[in-house]
Amino acid sequence: MKKIAIINGPNLDRLGRREPEVYGRQTLADLEKLLRDRVAGAAVELQFFQSNHEGEIIDRIAACADAGFAGLVINPGALTHTSVALRDALAGVGLPAVEVHISNIYRREEFRRHSLTAPACAGVISGLGFHGYAAALDFLLL
Amino acid sequence: MKKIAIINGPNLDRLGRREPEVYGRQTLADLEKLLRDRVAGAAVELQFFQSNHEGEIIDRIAACADAGFAGLVINPGALTHTSVALRDALAGVGLPAVEVHISNIYRREEFRRHSLTAPACAGVISGLGFHGYAAALDFLLL
Amino acid sequence: MKKIAIINGPNLDRLGRREPEVYGRQTLADLEKLLRDRVAGAAVELQFFQSNHEGEIIDRIAACADAGFAGLVINPGALTHTSVALRDALAGVGLPAVEVHISNIYRREEFRRHSLTAPACAGVISGLGFHGYAAALDFLLL
Amino acid sequence: MKKIAIINGPNLDRLGRREPEVYGRQTLADLEKLLRDRVAGAAVELQFFQSNHEGEIIDRIAACADAGFAGLVINPGALTHTSVALRDALAGVGLPAVEVHISNIYRREEFRRHSLTAPACAGVISGLGFHGYAAALDFLLL
Amino acid sequence: MKKIAIINGPNLDRLGRREPEVYGRQTLADLEKLLRDRVAGAAVELQFFQSNHEGEIIDRIAACADAGFAGLVINPGALTHTSVALRDALAGVGLPAVEVHISNIYRREEFRRHSLTAPACAGVISGLGFHGYAAALDFLLL
Amino acid sequence: MKKIAIINGPNLDRLGRREPEVYGRQTLADLEKLLRDRVAGAAVELQFFQSNHEGEIIDRIAACADAGFAGLVINPGALTHTSVALRDALAGVGLPAVEVHISNIYRREEFRRHSLTAPACAGVISGLGFHGYAAALDFLLL
Amino acid sequence: MKKIAIINGPNLDRLGRREPEVYGRQTLADLEKLLRDRVAGAAVELQFFQSNHEGEIIDRIAACADAGFAGLVINPGALTHTSVALRDALAGVGLPAVEVHISNIYRREEFRRHSLTAPACAGVISGLGFHGYAAALDFLLL
Amino acid sequence: MKKIAIINGPNLDRLGRREPEVYGRQTLADLEKLLRDRVAGAAVELQFFQSNHEGEIIDRIAACADAGFAGLVINPGALTHTSVALRDALAGVGLPAVEVHISNIYRREEFRRHSLTAPACAGVISGLGFHGYAAALDFLLL
Amino acid sequence: MKKIAIINGPNLDRLGRREPEVYGRQTLADLEKLLRDRVAGAAVELQFFQSNHEGEIIDRIAACADAGFAGLVINPGALTHTSVALRDALAGVGLPAVEVHISNIYRREEFRRHSLTAPACAGVISGLGFHGYAAALDFLLL
Amino acid sequence: MKKIAIINGPNLDRLGRREPEVYGRQTLADLEKLLRDRVAGAAVELQFFQSNHEGEIIDRIAACADAGFAGLVINPGALTHTSVALRDALAGVGLPAVEVHISNIYRREEFRRHSLTAPACAGVISGLGFHGYAAALDFLLL
Amino acid sequence: MKKIAIINGPNLDRLGRREPEVYGRQTLADLEKLLRDRVAGAAVELQFFQSNHEGEIIDRIAACADAGFAGLVINPGALTHTSVALRDALAGVGLPAVEVHISNIYRREEFRRHSLTAPACAGVISGLGFHGYAAALDFLLL
Amino acid sequence: MKKIAIINGPNLDRLGRREPEVYGRQTLADLEKLLRDRVAGAAVELQFFQSNHEGEIIDRIAACADAGFAGLVINPGALTHTSVALRDALAGVGLPAVEVHISNIYRREEFRRHSLTAPACAGVISGLGFHGYAAALDFLLL
Repeated sequence: MKKIAIINGPNLDRLGRREPEVYGRQTLADLEKLLRDRVAGAAVELQFFQSNHEGEIIDRIAACADAGFAGLVINPGALTHTSVALRDALAGVGLPAVEVHISNIYRREEFRRHSLTAPACAGVISGLGFHGYAAALDFLLL
Repeated sequence: MKKIAIINGPNLDRLGRREPEVYGRQTLADLEKLLRDRVAGAAVELQFFQSNHEGEIIDRIAACADAGFAGLVINPGALTHTSVALRDALAGVGLPAVEVHISNIYRREEFRRHSLTAPACAGVISGLGFHGYAAALDFLLL
Repeated sequence: MKKIAIINGPNLDRLGRREPEVYGRQTLADLEKLLRDRVAGAAVELQFFQSNHEGEIIDRIAACADAGFAGLVINPGALTHTSVALRDALAGVGLPAVEVHISNIYRREEFRRHSLTAPACAGVISGLGFHGYAAALDFLLL
Repeated sequence: MKKIAIINGPNLDRLGRREPEVYGRQTLADLEKLLRDRVAGAAVELQFFQSNHEGEIIDRIAACADAGFAGLVINPGALTHTSVALRDALAGVGLPAVEVHISNIYRREEFRRHSLTAPACAGVISGLGFHGYAAALDFLLL
Repeated sequence: MKKIAIINGPNLDRLGRREPEVYGRQTLADLEKLLRDRVAGAAVELQFFQSNHEGEIIDRIAACADAGFAGLVINPGALTHTSVALRDALAGVGLPAVEVHISNIYRREEFRRHSLTAPACAGVISGLGFHGYAAALDFLLL
Repeated sequence: MKKIAIINGPNLDRLGRREPEVYGRQTLADLEKLLRDRVAGAAVELQFFQSNHEGEIIDRIAACADAGFAGLVINPGALTHTSVALRDALAGVGLPAVEVHISNIYRREEFRRHSLTAPACAGVISGLGFHGYAAALDFLLL
Repeated sequence: MKKIAIINGPNLDRLGRREPEVYGRQTLADLEKLLRDRVAGAAVELQFFQSNHEGEIIDRIAACADAGFAGLVINPGALTHTSVALRDALAGVGLPAVEVHISNIYRREEFRRHSLTAPACAGVISGLGFHGYAAALDFLLL
Repeated sequence: MKKIAIINGPNLDRLGRREPEVYGRQTLADLEKLLRDRVAGAAVELQFFQSNHEGEIIDRIAACADAGFAGLVINPGALTHTSVALRDALAGVGLPAVEVHISNIYRREEFRRHSLTAPACAGVISGLGFHGYAAALDFLLL
Repeated sequence: MKKIAIINGPNLDRLGRREPEVYGRQTLADLEKLLRDRVAGAAVELQFFQSNHEGEIIDRIAACADAGFAGLVINPGALTHTSVALRDALAGVGLPAVEVHISNIYRREEFRRHSLTAPACAGVISGLGFHGYAAALDFLLL
Repeated sequence: MKKIAIINGPNLDRLGRREPEVYGRQTLADLEKLLRDRVAGAAVELQFFQSNHEGEIIDRIAACADAGFAGLVINPGALTHTSVALRDALAGVGLPAVEVHISNIYRREEFRRHSLTAPACAGVISGLGFHGYAAALDFLLL
Repeated sequence: MKKIAIINGPNLDRLGRREPEVYGRQTLADLEKLLRDRVAGAAVELQFFQSNHEGEIIDRIAACADAGFAGLVINPGALTHTSVALRDALAGVGLPAVEVHISNIYRREEFRRHSLTAPACAGVISGLGFHGYAAALDFLLL
Repeated sequence: MKKIAIINGPNLDRLGRREPEVYGRQTLADLEKLLRDRVAGAAVELQFFQSNHEGEIIDRIAACADAGFAGLVINPGALTHTSVALRDALAGVGLPAVEVHISNIYRREEFRRHSLTAPACAGVISGLGFHGYAAALDFLLL
């Protein structure tokens, strides 16, 4: 049984309510259903986690490493652009991770185009909506 | 019958021979086989194109628009970082496009992290190897 | 009954003790008294909140939106200059907010002159001491 | 009898006609009425001055100092971003001044976010419309 | 009868005497003759104005708008590179304007390549000598 | 018989179809007709050339010099901002050239305000639509 | 009895396991033993604290000031480079503090060479491993 | 009879009253006496001029050229750092000019270290108080 | 028999005619003669290639690698400063290359001092005229 | 017998007389006594060297390497910020070195925060006065 | 008897032979004669010193302070732009110093406009040739 | 008899011992032998000089000019990147000089890519090892 964590950062609990013209109207619950359906019947266990606290996300990444997870799908939200601590946490555990952004960060404000966390991940998917999470999951299960 | 073009830019004809520790040992022919297998049996027509000439790629993008293609998967190679003309071409035709990079551009030289073409695409996938092309194709067929 | 929240960020709990030559000798309790006196007798309910945790302030802003508040007076403290997450939270709820700084940020270190949160607010008041909070409150009650 | 000057810089004579979606439809005459009403009955004398000429504004600030004014409310308009001479004039007279902007300068072009004159003022109010002038006046009369 | 103003900024009164190797030997009087000859017989009224004072130019632009002018040909001289107030004046009146420079600003010092006023104009002509004024006039009369 | 070349760079073959709200609805054929009509009866020969290939444009500029052309009207399109080779080609042949842009480059993205080719031209016209080509032609025939 | 706090920031709980080629194989428990041995028999009380939460570290610094501590040895980890809030907390309490880094920050990534917190400390020691903590402690006990 | 103009820019009319710890307690009248005494008996005519208006200073410089002056001593005040028009005026008349600053501009704010006008002058003297004007005058009379 | 390619980029076909005060009066034919004379009698085969098309140069570099060349002497002309694709081509084939510039790029415009291609070469020679090609050839034959 | 050199750079011969409010009142002789006392009785030989000449310091570092020294304590003074040659000398000999600054360089002018020499040292101590030298010596003797 | 040192830095020993179109044809011996004549009969002792060695100049400045000099006239030559050590030497001795440059540094390369040493001097004179030394001497003898 | 000087700067006396993986194992003595062999029998006199002292190198360059040398081959080592004085010395004597670097400076740290001295030389050779000195010598003897 392979374990994969799907981690969402600050403000993503408000998906569906927050600026729907940018992020769409679907919620985290919709995302969870989409991904659970995708791996139904396979020997995969998905764990979902969201927090507005940088420290809790770092704790969780460390816990995933200790619990033998096979990989991480992570949307760090605003922490993408400011958190060296999160980058260190990802680099420190050594798990394959894929960074996902719902909107195309290259079409937004200048400071959103830079990712501090991306060099600590295997790759990045941006602008494909919820499909980005699904493609990241596929990649970790290759 | 839906038509999708897969366009590769400068130096990608040397995939498999050029710096295999960065780009892997598979060739464009392997990529073509992977993607044709993925859509086998579906009402999809794939067209593959590679060129080391910026002007030819611009011509081809325009031709795709005139021929009623449904979308583009494009790896602009080094042109990603230097070609305003390619950006204008993509923006001008208005076709949905997904930009793909085989390696994680965030782990490479500073000047490779910036993409001039990305704002003219729907999204970007970076670092997932040939799986990036497949995920982009899936997205365009959603 | 109109509800307005007055939110203070990191280190502002130490007002009166911390660098009094910059921030003055008055405390948050003095501020609360000043503002409650100003709206005494009016159909206004004030809620005061202070935290050193970025996540808690984000949670609170979201809670204010859910509870039907009419506006926010916010002094984000040091988060003014670094928190994209706070900016997103303010922009996401859509409540009118006024950003307040006790000292004149244009007279301080270079990095304090830039505000990440200001574009998500209706306006900014800087350098007028506690009067800045009062003027912001007046504005929200116009 | 306390004397306060309200000084408006270049193009503010066209308030109400110029880009009303940015600056509103009210005129300088409306502003004067608003502020005169606010201090009606108090021992305060207000003096209003507008000019499109930097030199005239500098002359006027010096004249206010010589005539024993208690403070200045100043909206330098575009000179905010370009005039070191105006900054020197404000710093030279030593009168308490409050800088006011009708629109939120943090939401506009990059070059409008920087204020050369603000370090020579006690504080800055931006984005609160005509209420900004009123709040500045209140502050000078505290 | 269509009215067009031709406005020249600081130091252009010295055309013909000032650095003739850069600006040529013709004077403002020569320019006026050239343009009056060009529109001779047409229903066009030309008004010429030169000033070394930024404030006077702003006043004049506003006066043109109030007097129903159809457009402006403006060579702001050195104010091109430093005057936000002039840009605001041009943007505020909403008249079509063409910015003209006698010499090619791209061949001169770095700071002359940037134009603060150009975004408030319909277009810019640089380096064509007096012909630039004529071409601007033609454009406004199209 | 005086010979003048009118050269258009990448993507300008799509004039009229590409982003008409920016570039208008007229095509290169319309431009050719406009200019041929303008010089009808005069001892002038016009040559029109468009290419999406930087190398072809450089070849053509050299060919014009060898064939005794009297001047060039050139809209380098996106190459304006990226091509040192084009600048060198223009500087190398020593023919008088006028750079033309259909839209006002000062009103567009930051990177479009910089012209690498302009210092190698006599002058630049920007924002006057097809009239810019005509005014450039007039200048070369003065 | 003199009280000194030794504070370690994000990810330092993983010392000994995380990238040992950079940070060595010793753990926080080893550090605690080293320092307790160094002050054995002296009138000194050491308090050790580690957290991955910026908010908790800020709370703790304030608590140390309230409890009459004589000084702080602090390794802020990644917060060194990003936390304005932590700098404000250190500057606000006014206790002598020494910033310690196990590795030489001048030999690492560019962004690690800049310290936001250092100006709020008496001094900085970098690159001397655990000896840096010991030297800092000696300094505070001079 | 040799004629030399001594020109002072914005805010220098307030010398002696404005920030005396920076600029000293002497006035423009003291300066005039100092310089008139220095050239007493020589075939030199001094003309003194001060204005807070950039346009008036430009007009005056042109008038000096027309009236056959032999040189200029100029303290442009804050215009030193912002006025391209003043630089053009100085360069345009071709008279030898010496720029003088009472205080040492290298010890003040960053933006005061840069002089736009200095390249149009023969030399610059900064930080020597009124002696700087005298030394400039000596130089022009060599 | 050792094979060496001498590759010249855009505009170098015009050597001898283009700006002779910068590049001298000798032509590519003179260069070819100089180098052929230098290796006369040795077991060396020289191949000369010039193109104004980036794509053709990339094709040629790849072809040289496939044909077993021992090294490249390359003057990329203006592509030195703008072509990431050319850099990738050089790095991809792994042949020893020496970059040559006829003039001293450190004495020219700022943008010519930076070389994108140099890190993909063994070394660079600049400013020694045609001798630079000869010295590069010597080096490859050591 | 272990040999350690203590090297002080430009102006440090004036310690005790130069700006005592920044550097304290103790002299280099006091420093020598402090360190000799610290290693009294141990098998350590200390060598002290001070020079205002960059070249002499480079010569001395090379001589220390040739004479089998075990390490260096170095305060390069102002050369810290400007000398690539000193950095190369330190990197070239391969001896462990600790860089020491008496004052906290993070609290001083911007240009003093950057150290060119630090990447060639094992570590850096800043702001701890003479204790910094002692702690560096301890480290080299561990 | 008042003692003043005149110190000249690197390459100034070659005055009169080096680039006479920039620095004139007079030598250091001419300068010495000019200044000795100027103070002939006064109670002033002048000492002249020139060196191409930064360390020697620092040694000399310290020696001047120890020998009770009243002030320094210094032309640091190229060290103006690169030597923090010289700045520290000047600031450390506390003697009034005037920095002199023969040519107008504002008319030369960008990097010559910045002076590291000027903030450690009372003032700066630039562009007045040898007269600059004389005016500096006058100032120190006021 | 033509005289040529070969000058090597700081740390190059340690060639062969210092970082041989970067600079090779050959020494300055090997270099001298290589070059003396190359000119054996020709009417050329070579003079070799190495110093770690910037001042001594400047003195030597001036001495070469006075002694009628025909040219200089110079490897300024680290002074390449920091010494304006050396640049001035080279420019001042007017001798043809060729700057040589053993390693390819474009492949090293960012700050080594910039050369302050190169604009004062005829040309630059970088990355060709000792062959660079030989090619420079050839050039000076052409």
